[in-house]
Amino acid sequence: MNRSLRFARLFAGSALIAALAAAASPGPTVGSSPWGPDDEIGQLNRMTDASRLAVLSRIGSGRAYDLSVEYYMGMPSWSEIGDPRYQFWLTHTPRGTTIDDPLRVGADQNATVSYTGDAVSMYTHMGTHIDALNHFGLNGRIWNGFEADRHLGDRGWKKAGAETVPPIVARGVLIDVAGAKGLEMLPDWYRVTAADLKQALAVQNTRLEPGDVVLIRTGRMQRYGSATQFIANPPGLGLDAARFLVEESQAMTLGADNLSFETFPSEVDGNWIPVHTYLLAQHGVMIMELVYLEELARERIYEFAFIGGSLKFRGASAGPMRPIAFPLR
Amino acid sequence: MNRSLRFARLFAGSALIAALAAAASPGPTVGSSPWGPDDEIGQLNRMTDASRLAVLSRIGSGRAYDLSVEYYMGMPSWSEIGDPRYQFWLTHTPRGTTIDDPLRVGADQNATVSYTGDAVSMYTHMGTHIDALNHFGLNGRIWNGFEADRHLGDRGWKKAGAETVPPIVARGVLIDVAGAKGLEMLPDWYRVTAADLKQALAVQNTRLEPGDVVLIRTGRMQRYGSATQFIANPPGLGLDAARFLVEESQAMTLGADNLSFETFPSEVDGNWIPVHTYLLAQHGVMIMELVYLEELARERIYEFAFIGGSLKFRGASAGPMRPIAFPLR
Amino acid sequence: MNRSLRFARLFAGSALIAALAAAASPGPTVGSSPWGPDDEIGQLNRMTDASRLAVLSRIGSGRAYDLSVEYYMGMPSWSEIGDPRYQFWLTHTPRGTTIDDPLRVGADQNATVSYTGDAVSMYTHMGTHIDALNHFGLNGRIWNGFEADRHLGDRGWKKAGAETVPPIVARGVLIDVAGAKGLEMLPDWYRVTAADLKQALAVQNTRLEPGDVVLIRTGRMQRYGSATQFIANPPGLGLDAARFLVEESQAMTLGADNLSFETFPSEVDGNWIPVHTYLLAQHGVMIMELVYLEELARERIYEFAFIGGSLKFRGASAGPMRPIAFPLR
Amino acid sequence: MNRSLRFARLFAGSALIAALAAAASPGPTVGSSPWGPDDEIGQLNRMTDASRLAVLSRIGSGRAYDLSVEYYMGMPSWSEIGDPRYQFWLTHTPRGTTIDDPLRVGADQNATVSYTGDAVSMYTHMGTHIDALNHFGLNGRIWNGFEADRHLGDRGWKKAGAETVPPIVARGVLIDVAGAKGLEMLPDWYRVTAADLKQALAVQNTRLEPGDVVLIRTGRMQRYGSATQFIANPPGLGLDAARFLVEESQAMTLGADNLSFETFPSEVDGNWIPVHTYLLAQHGVMIMELVYLEELARERIYEFAFIGGSLKFRGASAGPMRPIAFPLR
Repeated sequence: MNRSLRFARLFAGSALIAALAAAASPGPTVGSSPWGPDDEIGQLNRMTDASRLAVLSRIGSGRAYDLSVEYYMGMPSWSEIGDPRYQFWLTHTPRGTTIDDPLRVGADQNATVSYTGDAVSMYTHMGTHIDALNHFGLNGRIWNGFEADRHLGDRGWKKAGAETVPPIVARGVLIDVAGAKGLEMLPDWYRVTAADLKQALAVQNTRLEPGDVVLIRTGRMQRYGSATQFIANPPGLGLDAARFLVEESQAMTLGADNLSFETFPSEVDGNWIPVHTYLLAQHGVMIMELVYLEELARERIYEFAFIGGSLKFRGASAGPMRPIAFPLR
Repeated sequence: MNRSLRFARLFAGSALIAALAAAASPGPTVGSSPWGPDDEIGQLNRMTDASRLAVLSRIGSGRAYDLSVEYYMGMPSWSEIGDPRYQFWLTHTPRGTTIDDPLRVGADQNATVSYTGDAVSMYTHMGTHIDALNHFGLNGRIWNGFEADRHLGDRGWKKAGAETVPPIVARGVLIDVAGAKGLEMLPDWYRVTAADLKQALAVQNTRLEPGDVVLIRTGRMQRYGSATQFIANPPGLGLDAARFLVEESQAMTLGADNLSFETFPSEVDGNWIPVHTYLLAQHGVMIMELVYLEELARERIYEFAFIGGSLKFRGASAGPMRPIAFPLR
Repeated sequence: MNRSLRFARLFAGSALIAALAAAASPGPTVGSSPWGPDDEIGQLNRMTDASRLAVLSRIGSGRAYDLSVEYYMGMPSWSEIGDPRYQFWLTHTPRGTTIDDPLRVGADQNATVSYTGDAVSMYTHMGTHIDALNHFGLNGRIWNGFEADRHLGDRGWKKAGAETVPPIVARGVLIDVAGAKGLEMLPDWYRVTAADLKQALAVQNTRLEPGDVVLIRTGRMQRYGSATQFIANPPGLGLDAARFLVEESQAMTLGADNLSFETFPSEVDGNWIPVHTYLLAQHGVMIMELVYLEELARERIYEFAFIGGSLKFRGASAGPMRPIAFPLR
Repeated sequence: MNRSLRFARLFAGSALIAALAAAASPGPTVGSSPWGPDDEIGQLNRMTDASRLAVLSRIGSGRAYDLSVEYYMGMPSWSEIGDPRYQFWLTHTPRGTTIDDPLRVGADQNATVSYTGDAVSMYTHMGTHIDALNHFGLNGRIWNGFEADRHLGDRGWKKAGAETVPPIVARGVLIDVAGAKGLEMLPDWYRVTAADLKQALAVQNTRLEPGDVVLIRTGRMQRYGSATQFIANPPGLGLDAARFLVEESQAMTLGADNLSFETFPSEVDGNWIPVHTYLLAQHGVMIMELVYLEELARERIYEFAFIGGSLKFRGASAGPMRPIAFPLR
């Protein structure tokens, strides 16, 4: 069975959850923003100058934990259904410029300045990144009711694109689910539950607060060096875990160390990616993926100032980012 | 005269500066790192946990000034000699997925989840970014003596690539050269001198400190919406301004709001881009370009905590970034 | 005035042609194929084994005239509104592979085999190419009534894509409009009329036959080496010239040596590109652009066997090709 | 074992062939062209107006056999070591243009003309294509002694690039090795020998002539719809088969229906791809890959006029093409 077929079965063959199926009769609808009809960033509206200053003021160490991964040829990515893999190429090299002389300055001068230039191409959901609220919708609409037919051009969305995502500065919390279970890594296809999260929080002795950036560690990042192993059969979050974080704990943004945040196959009939639609389209909660949490976990730093700004790709459904964490006092 | 020719003349037709020409007899050589033969990041080695904590502790406001620009189709970039312009394209759309059904989940399910995905390709020196130390060298070597013939493969440099650049957290200083002169924007081709910098610092009543991230405002950013106007005849720094910042003021990293930091034509015979080779190859000082400084300038915020992490494109000569600034107490 | 604006005015500011405006009341509609509801190739259906053999049998010389242009960095292309320019990059080089060793065979073996590999990216309407019938439609439909909403996915059209275009083998005719006027090149923005075509045919003493591939020479190809000059203010065909070729002369396929076949601004109110919609959508006639006709013109070869197969990019709106011509007996 | 490792072992773990090893002491060297020091196309120099006319004059049927494959997302390609997979994307769509209005002509006019545009990116050795003589060399040089250090810039080779390859018009011969053995497809990793070729020629009752385009059928093309299956463990030619074709039979150009022409692991120690270096670098014989031969084989058409022109990508190591075949009298 080729991979594409295998994925298809996973996505399509999801178990029915009665409650959701019932609710789905008229079909779930996208969330309407409490911040008004023009809102494009959902829960990130909660950030204020005061909230940012509050967490910055609590920084207790100047050690910067790098929460991002490298981009490299062959890196893990979501390429199964055609999305481009990461490409890197050189546009200028010291030797090449002496031969091409693109600026017509002569071989000597090219040799002197030894120019290196390069280019990349990539799917936007690659490496450490944040999903914008337009990434998944429901029935042609995204968060706050913006419609594809009115707002999606050939150059992306006129609404809720990656350029609207503000820099995120907030209290960050790591929930090391794998660590709390004494595992190096959650098993293949493991679906993280609300109970798992609560247990880990208890083990860590960490309390969630409204407005947190909550980062879930599955341990999968240890395989980042091998695309095949990283992508295969990933553990991830389930719907009730997402609900616990959003509805009960009032998290502002979520993230995890795996490729797709949630796991598969879907728990919801007729929706192959229900955690994404729940978070992005229904609740206005952005999702970070491929967040590097190994160092924080190793040093048991569960609470920190999270600081990260994603690239402002106009109209895009995601922005790559390189967030950092500073331990709090 | 077409643009390529025009550029060629600018680069080639530089005035001879006697002192440098003399020094150039044996040719300038790349700098040797005081941080040892393995060093790939030059002056960024100055950052320590203590230096970071010092500046973070002085943050006096939670207002985050966004120092980055948007990526958009048609954006200004260095494409004159073949480098790719920014491209953005959709790989999945709500309507398209119902027709293609790439996951074989059926039209209904595709309609339900309304998937948007997208991809980009870009020259790495596009949008707000930082040049890695391998971007320009001298005679086949880069900072600290790494050689193209030994360390430059088809996938970039094995040394000093963008993935080695640490997150930058330091005191930032804006030198608003245009503002100090009472200008909206420096004139075309204006070459900023050390005297200009000193005057602006005096007007602003700002003092540079060793280890600063120094950002120069030419005002050119006001034209960012038009690639043609932004790129044409840019003002930029001259060599003695760079020397003042690096040798006299001990800046750690430099940046500006224009495309190429320095201006053209070169002041140095036989080197069309001497400020870059001086900073990157000889002194290990990285350069940020296309930094958005308008808001800081408008509010006369000349001193701030600079926080920015660039994307870790392995082996690349630059990394895009989205830095932010917080006013200090 | 920047280029984009200039183009916009050209396209929008077209003169009203009364007859067409009248006809446009209900709006023109796409053509319905005489070859049935499944037809995707329009007039190319006219080719038969017999028609091909007939022309092949008349070949009188083994000299192959190359009707295609080179692809090179900086080549002319339609990039004004965001389409990617031609990019070429190296993925493997003799020196690079010895450093990267992507196959893990060791530096010696890499040095021995001296591998060069490369990649390209391009807009499909670049270099010598043929427009598929899906390139322009009318009101959401293309030739033969196929609808964007039903047949256009994220990976292109399910109907009338470039992969459906058969190899073209037919009698070819060059109409050297510039030559017949004793000009090196038609003036900027010159709109070729039916009268111009008739005059040139008379001067050449050439007769059109039903099923011909008719190639129009404006002389613009002489500027191919400079993208700026090639693209600027191009001469091209007008609507009555197209009608003469299609309705009166029964041409099977048309082509020209310029970028866009027709010229601008449009003659038709409310349609910035009426020759394309007339040919592709209404009459099922494909269009070749950037055809190299200089050599044929120089040697006054006006009649020939045209042989050309375009690349089968699935779902695409054009396919690049390298046609050749052999003089007939 | 991941694929990359698997490939590495295949390439590195080749059996030693005594004769070659002996010859390899000083190392094999690239061929020197009998057509002079400027020659960049090797054996293709054999074509003349007379040779082309001779074969064209023998065409006995107007049925055009299409020898090319489609380009599609997910198509088989050599992507194991980083080369880009085929990407196709839309740059303009009927709905998208009404929303983006890139030409500023208004939504109505965009709706009227229903514009579709698209772009591709690809490794040049993808789909039906021909390898230029610069694709593989020996010790830093390619056919006729051109050196990478002198002739390879950042934009490809100044010598022997794909733009130098003339249109190929010659007698074509199909050797259906799989068919002659009564097989649908040669087994995995099967290495075609000279004896296999002779047997097939005998079974077919076909005679090779000097200057032929010889196309070898392994049957692998039947798996073209599945990249994984097409690429895996491909049968291909061995060195003695190549020698038989080139030295004994005086073929002008070779081709096959698989991805890499030859099979692996290599027969030659220290050279993972010896058939390529033998043909391209030592003998100036270009290689076509992914040639579609199923229809010819099915109809037992072993002799034909081969007509094909490859795209002129300047400096590139290959050019895609869409050759056709006409049966001879």
